[in-house]
Amino acid sequence: MRTLEMMETHPARITVDTALLSRVIDSLVECAQTCTACADACLSEDMVADLRDCIRTNLDCADVCGATARVLGRHTAYDGNVVRALLEACVVACRTCGDECGSHAEMHAHCRVCAEVCRACRAACEELLAVM
Amino acid sequence: MRTLEMMETHPARITVDTALLSRVIDSLVECAQTCTACADACLSEDMVADLRDCIRTNLDCADVCGATARVLGRHTAYDGNVVRALLEACVVACRTCGDECGSHAEMHAHCRVCAEVCRACRAACEELLAVM
Amino acid sequence: MRTLEMMETHPARITVDTALLSRVIDSLVECAQTCTACADACLSEDMVADLRDCIRTNLDCADVCGATARVLGRHTAYDGNVVRALLEACVVACRTCGDECGSHAEMHAHCRVCAEVCRACRAACEELLAVM
Amino acid sequence: MRTLEMMETHPARITVDTALLSRVIDSLVECAQTCTACADACLSEDMVADLRDCIRTNLDCADVCGATARVLGRHTAYDGNVVRALLEACVVACRTCGDECGSHAEMHAHCRVCAEVCRACRAACEELLAVM
Repeated sequence: MRTLEMMETHPARITVDTALLSRVIDSLVECAQTCTACADACLSEDMVADLRDCIRTNLDCADVCGATARVLGRHTAYDGNVVRALLEACVVACRTCGDECGSHAEMHAHCRVCAEVCRACRAACEELLAVM
Repeated sequence: MRTLEMMETHPARITVDTALLSRVIDSLVECAQTCTACADACLSEDMVADLRDCIRTNLDCADVCGATARVLGRHTAYDGNVVRALLEACVVACRTCGDECGSHAEMHAHCRVCAEVCRACRAACEELLAVM
Repeated sequence: MRTLEMMETHPARITVDTALLSRVIDSLVECAQTCTACADACLSEDMVADLRDCIRTNLDCADVCGATARVLGRHTAYDGNVVRALLEACVVACRTCGDECGSHAEMHAHCRVCAEVCRACRAACEELLAVM
Repeated sequence: MRTLEMMETHPARITVDTALLSRVIDSLVECAQTCTACADACLSEDMVADLRDCIRTNLDCADVCGATARVLGRHTAYDGNVVRALLEACVVACRTCGDECGSHAEMHAHCRVCAEVCRACRAACEELLAVM
């Protein structure tokens, strides 16, 4: 990911710590893609009927993190209110998904990876919220 | 849009008023697509340099409304917390975009239409939030 | 959907039949949202294990149709090659999803609705491809 | 990105070279996010009126690559036809965007980075298409 490089070459003045912001975007992008993959891995499990909640929360988390990554990647006419509301939605989605995946992390390795990614993403979003 | 029909044939028990929920989803989908079109119409205007804020807020609003429409379309293992946080982000994004588009509605007809759509979408989201 | 109105107020000269283009965009948007809902309805069915293929193809079709609707909603610096390649991908995704949903349309009413929507969307995309 | 790890823990048998597939997905995700950032950087440039084509092609490329990354991340009930059509659309979108960004790479560093990313993504997609 060339996220930081794209920020450093952006003509707008970015008022947030770009190293942190870049790390959050990368976390969000990774989380969106990992949750998409985890939903599909759960769908292929023999016990798919027991993984409905996990699939649903994975799909939600992917949608929220994906949209937030795109919004955070924009610096023209920055609006802190939209960003803050979205980061808060991400924290909720990542907590829900991290908890759900974490609850069967011992049974399914893809859920273990996904839980780790969701938790890291939630922590990154909270770190950014704290300095905004 | 066959949103209501899809809800009525869904095997899960949906606890919200389906007519309202269906109307909110249709508003979000319409808003996402209208904002995408308005961003592009602004980009083609001679005075594009004066419409940077509008383009940016249009793109954000499209991302937030699109993600929220997808999440609201899921009823398996419903999680009110994610939905509520997202609807709140939509209210902020639609207010920001409706205000921005509204401020040059007299000059650009596409911004007038987009402002109307954003305001209707915001009202629909607030109506749903009020009954959740 | 105010798709046609957004086209008629767009400053760029649109060389395609706007009534047709607008109808295709509306079909794509409807198809994306219907497939998202059908994936979730299948996920809630008792026999979810038999609906894995349907869920996967629903998710794919939603992704392809959603992206295509956004691209078709742009008229600035129009590039026929990207549009054509995407419409062809939509035809494939809608055919696959329409066939899959159609194969259990008698058992699940949401699949019947989704099959109808996918077929209509495919026909709309083919109609547009034929005049491009 | 934990793309490869998610594939290695997926219960479905993946018939493509997972190292290559994982590399393509990572390229697509990087390209989608870089194009989103480049569109916004162009929007902030003084000479935005000369960058309309670049912004439009950036937004298209982001949409196509984002959708393709999600589809490639699914292995349940794999359908080569949808994947192939999407990869072909990506090749077109990345070529168009890489050429456009490349044409003013000397003037705007963000366009230079984006052109590199688009070209790498196109090459990755072509490599995958060649072995499918």
